[in-house]
Amino acid sequence: MIHPKAIKLPAGIEIIQKSKLLHDDVIDNADLRRGDVTLQKKYGKKTAVICGDYLFCVALNLVASISNKEDYLDLNMQNYMGKVCLGELNQYLNNGNLNLSMYQYLKIIDGKTAALFEASFYAGAIFSDCKETECKRYKQLGHYIGMIFQLIDDCIDFEKTVDVAKKPVQSDFEQGVITLPLIKALEDMSEFKEKASNNQVTRKDINDAVNKAGGLKFTHWVVSRYHAKSMKIINELELTESKKNKLISILNKAAHLA
Amino acid sequence: MIHPKAIKLPAGIEIIQKSKLLHDDVIDNADLRRGDVTLQKKYGKKTAVICGDYLFCVALNLVASISNKEDYLDLNMQNYMGKVCLGELNQYLNNGNLNLSMYQYLKIIDGKTAALFEASFYAGAIFSDCKETECKRYKQLGHYIGMIFQLIDDCIDFEKTVDVAKKPVQSDFEQGVITLPLIKALEDMSEFKEKASNNQVTRKDINDAVNKAGGLKFTHWVVSRYHAKSMKIINELELTESKKNKLISILNKAAHLA
Repeated sequence: MIHPKAIKLPAGIEIIQKSKLLHDDVIDNADLRRGDVTLQKKYGKKTAVICGDYLFCVALNLVASISNKEDYLDLNMQNYMGKVCLGELNQYLNNGNLNLSMYQYLKIIDGKTAALFEASFYAGAIFSDCKETECKRYKQLGHYIGMIFQLIDDCIDFEKTVDVAKKPVQSDFEQGVITLPLIKALEDMSEFKEKASNNQVTRKDINDAVNKAGGLKFTHWVVSRYHAKSMKIINELELTESKKNKLISILNKAAHLA
Repeated sequence: MIHPKAIKLPAGIEIIQKSKLLHDDVIDNADLRRGDVTLQKKYGKKTAVICGDYLFCVALNLVASISNKEDYLDLNMQNYMGKVCLGELNQYLNNGNLNLSMYQYLKIIDGKTAALFEASFYAGAIFSDCKETECKRYKQLGHYIGMIFQLIDDCIDFEKTVDVAKKPVQSDFEQGVITLPLIKALEDMSEFKEKASNNQVTRKDINDAVNKAGGLKFTHWVVSRYHAKSMKIINELELTESKKNKLISILNKAAHLA
């Protein structure tokens, strides 16, 4: 029999993620999400804001219903969600900031994306009655896989077409979202940076600069570093061969290696 | 010494309220709140949505930090917040609905306003170690005072100037928000309702119709019914004379009788 917590917790996290996506689509004015028309496009921003708020309450309710201080360690979904909001705010405050450093960028994606992966892995370990050291390992693994997921997602904006990505591509810069492939180009090519500061770059200029600076290659190298750290943790975990292979397949899926 | 819960709880509820106001101002496209420029006007809708989400997390964190299943009865802030969202959604779905009944209207304001008053009164009673029957009385009193607050607030849109109200007035109908004074006019005057259905009414027509139908008088009569019910509960509570007078003064303030 599947433990009720093993259903309620991922359901809660999935609903939290949906609630954030509803607000993200309002914030980004996005028309498309996973190949479908967004709620904000179809029913308007007001409905999307309210529905996002409602889903968030439903989700926290679900998570709270399984909370149990004894086996709960310090998992605290509200805290994680606060981290997600701060990551988003941090991203927005740095909208169009061509001086964004790699360190600042990694901090932003830690909040806006990796925090929820971390919470999911951590909670799963806690509710599986893992020992505290094992729980901490899963938590760290969740963080790494979340970072990988976002780094790859930021590459997709340059590498894929809208048909393959099933969401808008070639649009991060246009929305003022500065990601690692572009940061590499801005750091390496001062002339390009100056043109960008003066709003004198086309989409083609950006793609050319990112290619020339090896921005995508560099980002995939950063991914490979997180991948190696993840593999180290997976090898330290006390796991059956079958579970280990499942974790590796999740990791490789995030890294688009599978 | 003041009990820590007596600070953390109202602080949490106040922050929840603020987070809702930030989103409300986005939803209503409002420029002014309590006499000040709104965050959405000053920093944009994106910032206001994210800040609202963040404050909500901070608040739930505060409330969760004092939760204690033994003395907590069934207070459940996420549940109350879900009710608030559903009330707002219900209001928005009925935007411009000239057939809105008094019953539907009361259900909407129960969710969007009275629920948070109810939660505040209930939580206060729980944390003051009141007996269960007393807690239920406070909960009911909070509901009534919340209903009164919103009914009076809906009258202000017709009765006051922007200088006195310190927020936009004469604007509910223009935003598609149908309130009780207008419902009375729509129910009593079929000719006015037909003109309104065909978008042929000016603000003056609306004010005239509400006056002619006694919409404000009727709404104040409904307030007086809730006031009487509130007084009955206050008289049943086991209170010192001084505390009783404080409660009556809160009630009268909501009803604009003080």
